[in-house]
Amino acid sequence: MVKDSQRAVVLLSGGMDSCVCAALAARDHQAAAVHVSYGQRTEERERRAFFAICDRLGIRDRLLVRNEALSAIGGSALTDRDIGIPESRSLGRDIPATYVPFRNAHFLSVAVSWAEVLGATQVYIGAVEQDSSGYPDCRPEYYRAFNEVVRLGTKDGGIEIRTPLIRMRKSEIVRLGLELGAPFDLTWSCYGREDSACGVCDSCVLRLRAFRDAGSADPIPYAALAEKV
Amino acid sequence: MVKDSQRAVVLLSGGMDSCVCAALAARDHQAAAVHVSYGQRTEERERRAFFAICDRLGIRDRLLVRNEALSAIGGSALTDRDIGIPESRSLGRDIPATYVPFRNAHFLSVAVSWAEVLGATQVYIGAVEQDSSGYPDCRPEYYRAFNEVVRLGTKDGGIEIRTPLIRMRKSEIVRLGLELGAPFDLTWSCYGREDSACGVCDSCVLRLRAFRDAGSADPIPYAALAEKV
Repeated sequence: MVKDSQRAVVLLSGGMDSCVCAALAARDHQAAAVHVSYGQRTEERERRAFFAICDRLGIRDRLLVRNEALSAIGGSALTDRDIGIPESRSLGRDIPATYVPFRNAHFLSVAVSWAEVLGATQVYIGAVEQDSSGYPDCRPEYYRAFNEVVRLGTKDGGIEIRTPLIRMRKSEIVRLGLELGAPFDLTWSCYGREDSACGVCDSCVLRLRAFRDAGSADPIPYAALAEKV
Repeated sequence: MVKDSQRAVVLLSGGMDSCVCAALAARDHQAAAVHVSYGQRTEERERRAFFAICDRLGIRDRLLVRNEALSAIGGSALTDRDIGIPESRSLGRDIPATYVPFRNAHFLSVAVSWAEVLGATQVYIGAVEQDSSGYPDCRPEYYRAFNEVVRLGTKDGGIEIRTPLIRMRKSEIVRLGLELGAPFDLTWSCYGREDSACGVCDSCVLRLRAFRDAGSADPIPYAALAEKV
């Protein structure tokens, strides 16, 4: 396996999509991983997943940053305890309560700033449009527009944001992860719990459905299973 | 003076440009001001300027956030003590050492997230292209591209980033500020010092030149004056 000489920064939340994305980046580049904590409910559990996945994938350059703005601003069930985490009933209709206003721009800004200092030419993010929760910042046109901002707003304009999973179904992402040996056992996707995954929030339901459709068992423990996976 | 019913968020660093920009936003809208500290050398002094300017302009909605990423990433004379603040000799040639990699994207992300939660339809930023230090994220095309990201990446796409000063000369900004009654006496622009402005860094030299060209005296104290203002 020959790696590209170009360095890449990968945004690694610790969920299944970002884990597969990191496995891809680590296969093809000298990868550096960045994790942003933003006061989300499962912050500690996700941070643990980040370090464990980096260890398993052999990613040594790591950046862990805390974003204070998103929790100060609120407006999302993920950062505001007064807004409940919706169960999967509502999936696929409107933009859900777990939408964090303009969140991915914060994450991309961190990754691009770091890429500029490292001399990396690629930023990987595991955004997924299909099968996802309907977040506006998970669509291909959003990343096309952001790439234009990066081209115009950096020193030499030579950094590209890559979204290798964006057009895949979640079940295809599971299959790709299995091929790559992505450490799904170390990932965390649940929006609400940190001990075992709740099995009923949007994120758990999408994940369980993806493993079922891929004909594989999800290796992490669940507290309950939604009736309608 | 009739204010627009639309709310606006203004990015207010505490420097002269952002102060004039805030005066404009406060004249025309119900304005909310956001300040981002990012480990820059004159962080405390700028924060003080932010609060004082908000008080004078009657801006009651304020958000103060700390960005940990930019100082962790470094790569700039403003956030890394191992890189010296250049004196004005180098002004106007290359992108200077005070360039903070992809900084304005971090600031805009905070302002847009907050605007989304407040229901504001405008984000004001006092970026200036001409007479400025050659930063890539101070050019009109950068903001055009960012507006496309905002349109695509927010819930209803109805927020617009406005850069009312971007094509003005610094001396015109001084004149506009004087007309608006912008509190220049409360602003802070110096990159290097917090007691009295150094008078020799790029930012001080541009500011002094602007006041001189506007035929007005800069009301803040200087420790020294550059020979070639």
